[in-house]
Amino acid sequence: MTTNRINTAILGASGYTGAELLRLLARHPNAHVKALTAEKRAGAALGEVFPHLAHLDVPKLVKIGDVDFSGIDVVFCALPHGLTQEVIAGLPTHLKIVDLSADFRLHDVATYAKWYGHEHLAPKLQQEAVYGITELARAAVAKARLVANPGCYPTSAQLPLVPLLEAGLIETGDIIIDAKSGVTGAGREAKEANLYAEVTEGIHAYGVGGHRHAPEIEQGLTIAAGQPIIVNFTAHLMPMSRGILSSIYVKLAKGATADDLRANLSARYAAEPFVHVMPAGQTPATRHVRGSNHCRIAVFPDRVPGRAIVISVIDNLVKGASGQAIQNFNVMTGLPEILALEQEAMFP
Amino acid sequence: MTTNRINTAILGASGYTGAELLRLLARHPNAHVKALTAEKRAGAALGEVFPHLAHLDVPKLVKIGDVDFSGIDVVFCALPHGLTQEVIAGLPTHLKIVDLSADFRLHDVATYAKWYGHEHLAPKLQQEAVYGITELARAAVAKARLVANPGCYPTSAQLPLVPLLEAGLIETGDIIIDAKSGVTGAGREAKEANLYAEVTEGIHAYGVGGHRHAPEIEQGLTIAAGQPIIVNFTAHLMPMSRGILSSIYVKLAKGATADDLRANLSARYAAEPFVHVMPAGQTPATRHVRGSNHCRIAVFPDRVPGRAIVISVIDNLVKGASGQAIQNFNVMTGLPEILALEQEAMFP
Amino acid sequence: MTTNRINTAILGASGYTGAELLRLLARHPNAHVKALTAEKRAGAALGEVFPHLAHLDVPKLVKIGDVDFSGIDVVFCALPHGLTQEVIAGLPTHLKIVDLSADFRLHDVATYAKWYGHEHLAPKLQQEAVYGITELARAAVAKARLVANPGCYPTSAQLPLVPLLEAGLIETGDIIIDAKSGVTGAGREAKEANLYAEVTEGIHAYGVGGHRHAPEIEQGLTIAAGQPIIVNFTAHLMPMSRGILSSIYVKLAKGATADDLRANLSARYAAEPFVHVMPAGQTPATRHVRGSNHCRIAVFPDRVPGRAIVISVIDNLVKGASGQAIQNFNVMTGLPEILALEQEAMFP
Amino acid sequence: MTTNRINTAILGASGYTGAELLRLLARHPNAHVKALTAEKRAGAALGEVFPHLAHLDVPKLVKIGDVDFSGIDVVFCALPHGLTQEVIAGLPTHLKIVDLSADFRLHDVATYAKWYGHEHLAPKLQQEAVYGITELARAAVAKARLVANPGCYPTSAQLPLVPLLEAGLIETGDIIIDAKSGVTGAGREAKEANLYAEVTEGIHAYGVGGHRHAPEIEQGLTIAAGQPIIVNFTAHLMPMSRGILSSIYVKLAKGATADDLRANLSARYAAEPFVHVMPAGQTPATRHVRGSNHCRIAVFPDRVPGRAIVISVIDNLVKGASGQAIQNFNVMTGLPEILALEQEAMFP
Repeated sequence: MTTNRINTAILGASGYTGAELLRLLARHPNAHVKALTAEKRAGAALGEVFPHLAHLDVPKLVKIGDVDFSGIDVVFCALPHGLTQEVIAGLPTHLKIVDLSADFRLHDVATYAKWYGHEHLAPKLQQEAVYGITELARAAVAKARLVANPGCYPTSAQLPLVPLLEAGLIETGDIIIDAKSGVTGAGREAKEANLYAEVTEGIHAYGVGGHRHAPEIEQGLTIAAGQPIIVNFTAHLMPMSRGILSSIYVKLAKGATADDLRANLSARYAAEPFVHVMPAGQTPATRHVRGSNHCRIAVFPDRVPGRAIVISVIDNLVKGASGQAIQNFNVMTGLPEILALEQEAMFP
Repeated sequence: MTTNRINTAILGASGYTGAELLRLLARHPNAHVKALTAEKRAGAALGEVFPHLAHLDVPKLVKIGDVDFSGIDVVFCALPHGLTQEVIAGLPTHLKIVDLSADFRLHDVATYAKWYGHEHLAPKLQQEAVYGITELARAAVAKARLVANPGCYPTSAQLPLVPLLEAGLIETGDIIIDAKSGVTGAGREAKEANLYAEVTEGIHAYGVGGHRHAPEIEQGLTIAAGQPIIVNFTAHLMPMSRGILSSIYVKLAKGATADDLRANLSARYAAEPFVHVMPAGQTPATRHVRGSNHCRIAVFPDRVPGRAIVISVIDNLVKGASGQAIQNFNVMTGLPEILALEQEAMFP
Repeated sequence: MTTNRINTAILGASGYTGAELLRLLARHPNAHVKALTAEKRAGAALGEVFPHLAHLDVPKLVKIGDVDFSGIDVVFCALPHGLTQEVIAGLPTHLKIVDLSADFRLHDVATYAKWYGHEHLAPKLQQEAVYGITELARAAVAKARLVANPGCYPTSAQLPLVPLLEAGLIETGDIIIDAKSGVTGAGREAKEANLYAEVTEGIHAYGVGGHRHAPEIEQGLTIAAGQPIIVNFTAHLMPMSRGILSSIYVKLAKGATADDLRANLSARYAAEPFVHVMPAGQTPATRHVRGSNHCRIAVFPDRVPGRAIVISVIDNLVKGASGQAIQNFNVMTGLPEILALEQEAMFP
Repeated sequence: MTTNRINTAILGASGYTGAELLRLLARHPNAHVKALTAEKRAGAALGEVFPHLAHLDVPKLVKIGDVDFSGIDVVFCALPHGLTQEVIAGLPTHLKIVDLSADFRLHDVATYAKWYGHEHLAPKLQQEAVYGITELARAAVAKARLVANPGCYPTSAQLPLVPLLEAGLIETGDIIIDAKSGVTGAGREAKEANLYAEVTEGIHAYGVGGHRHAPEIEQGLTIAAGQPIIVNFTAHLMPMSRGILSSIYVKLAKGATADDLRANLSARYAAEPFVHVMPAGQTPATRHVRGSNHCRIAVFPDRVPGRAIVISVIDNLVKGASGQAIQNFNVMTGLPEILALEQEAMFP
């Protein structure tokens, strides 16, 4: 793209990832939001759905069918899974697309069908889509037309694990990922389970042994390791709006130490603006990445000989969703990768 | 100031307002942070005190006595009250200063002594200081060398009340300000009362009938009304990190209606980038200004005839402290007023 | 009632007030829970709806139509308003009833129709019902067949205000009640507005100028004062599951002082097990009544001459709903009033 | 003990475990609180330290040196570790003692010295003390004079793991305990790290690889397994006042299944009033045990072949501290074990 201004549309703008795209894009010097959709809220001004964004100069919410895509360059798609593949299959092909749903993340048709309960409706696009953890797939993202923006949990798990597996520093068996997530990961739909009084001051695990992010993580780790990997991925819901902390328990490859792991990750991410490997002894906290596109990673020796502990934190709505989507957008359009993502974490 | 780059120092950088100044200034195109002080943490890198800012390119924390002020243009002073007046009195006079403490907010020597329990140590500076709610004192701030940055509660109360009193739309008696604040207003000092387990899931009033922000509010309202005003200001501490909501109960001047009040405020603030008067029927929420420099105001008719309800919300750390400090800094240095303050609220 | 065991039914047991009735009744030596209803969850065991109560020895949830009321002595009715009046009108007349809904709280037919948008469907019962703030209506409750259990906000407002108005210590005009409530007051229904991410770390007012608890409060205050009273009642939703704090701003009657108000309330409630008037200078906090049937009240002089500040706190689910319901049940059945209500507040 | 009334003292009554002992003992039919100590708050009434307990009929706080122990039967000791061993060594020997500190939990002198940095000051008492997870040591507790009340984390870990190791159903290597705790586990001392604004809306791990509860857990598991066990114990601090959820990742012994584990635990705890093994597919939540003495345990198959996931929840202040202390007190004094512990969890 050679022009300075890139026209974008956000499909599914009334959810939390939509709000976050808008918050960040409001300070993007090149991206112009030209269309916003929300099927149920079509006709509403953005301020009716998100009062905190009422003063933004953006168009009203409309139905997808009412968008004129001819003037749009790039689409951010933040629709529910399932619906997404139908919608994207029907979009004009001149569009570049960053899809925030789960629909194009799994490349294997059978795996998709098994975990989502139906055949994929756009298998060609499924093959075309580039799985976009930006730091791990930058070159492919740069050439992609359709980027499958990774899930929040998978981003937090793969950023530390992929380099370690590629380097053969950890064993491929018995990888245990104990993840703690904020509530926005569940979206904005009104469900009893996500009411304030059901969430505050407590924690519980969910989807134990059967969370859909497990195969997504395994897909990436399997490629990195060059052999099939099955992981324990256990998700917990806790009282915070934003953030994921993944505590990852791994076996060291023969001769490797926790220091080796840290050194490997430090080298791998030394030049990255958003991934920070912490010095020995420092522990990351989700509140230290809240609102930012940063990922912080720390490595600790385990009391149990031959094991190590890797901890990563991200904001699930930023690096785990809308921030990484914009990062991919920047890469896809040849812009500086950090545009609109320069904000520091908001603490306290 | 004619150069593009302005060198700044932050005195008292290890507290919450210091962190917030750094978060916001990190995206200021002109302000350069050249010195950071923290008496107890002198020698530490910023990342030891605020891990979320570890990657910022700023100098180590030092003691105030070790700062070379000759290369500094503007000082942000975020020190405790009392200490502040001594420190500022000793600073070189070429410095412009935005002071975030309470030390220079009250102009009357006797009032200061009564509420703070001792004579002011720098009465000349007290007279020189400009009280800086930016929207209400822009011209004076532009010419000031020393700006007393207003308190968080007083900002939330005066932004709606000053125009209404100036216009004679409300009576001067029986103004009741019921304010609810987040915990960061109490600073970062370790106190039992501010522990998580003492604050979460509850609310209580404090300083009832004797909060030090009462005389500050009364000073501003008295000037606006042209006659002495005493207010009921009742502060409540509630479980949120950031935010103040002030519910203000007023008597309408004869013939005035709630609609008149809203129309007056709308006109007054129509051109302001940070103060938004909401349409009739919409209610402001603190979460809709969190992290931003915005103030939202709404006016409602009261069931009780002849009365109205005015509600304002701000983020106490931004418009109530560091954001307004930067806004004043921009005005004092002739820069565009919104620099470094363009971020939208972070919701959710 | 002469037997030791009283058989009860809870209609609408799957909501928060239902859960709270069960939590408290589990330790009642005389009350036996013989039937539980929940239309949508009929057939489920209690543990499916409330896992924390899974080990209680209670019957499954059924539909109201499937309850055999012949063996029931007392019904706790925790159904939505509107539906309630239909259901109660159809119950056998041997039953004593404590109704937790709003349906029988307003005695005036026209006031009911105005605030609830339809004619009352059981106007005879509406006249029969006793409005049951236990401490203020004990004798009438003891003889009642149908008790209208007061609303949470009205309980917190009337406990301090009724004695003061009866004693003529405050003026009848310009009573301002600024109330802050936890989220369970809104019930367990899945609504976007009550999602964790929409509530945490923020506060907003709602129903400003038009909350349905206003006429309920005014009804009680009007009786107490012997003349019509209109109040400002402004409700705020804040991030806590349980609790209401009402900050009440009043004008002192001629010659009265804040100390007079405190002395009056102290005397009035001296013998009450659940209402505590705090010594001068102490401030109540909702967390100090959480989970208990206690109400704490404090009185402060106002900076504004001739005014006073009265603050009350309750747990909206206990003294504001299920606890007071049991208190009324105890009075109606001639049992010691504190049975099943002896638990202390849970802090932290 | 043959009398009905047992006189107790609480040493260190101004902390959270002290408050919790008082909350629960207030409803104990036999225990009489005859002395309360708090060195720094000596002379204060309980209501000054804990306003929610102001109406309890208990003595003022005094210094330990001012307690007349001649009329006391049982002491609850809730003092800081280190100090505790000195104090208890100096108490009259007619006293039975439940010690809530860490001082008498580790039986091995060398292990104690290694983890706590100094030689034990009362090694004889260290040998005498009975480690009291009530369900696992009931007979020994019944005969004990000094019970070391277990740590909160160790209780949550050992209740599920001890039976499984005793039965040989899991392997002894690679036991990973990922625990998430509320903030009261850190006590009431004023520390920056536990301020509301430092804790809310976030999570972080702490003491990674070196938490003092690791050797306590290992001691119990080693006895159960009959061979040395080293565990990975990783603690996380999250925004809740009360509660611990331990996600435990284990390897199945050859031939064993997750169902076998659940069946074993179900049988083991079938008659226990406070330990509940959940049916397959149900997940425990900390909010479902909040305020109660219950422990809930669930077992899940792992996606990784040959592994299982065990999850337990407790309230750290009840089953993890003061509740279990009273449970042990009941057993030590021959009273029914559930006295004062009958309260259900408080949800929401």
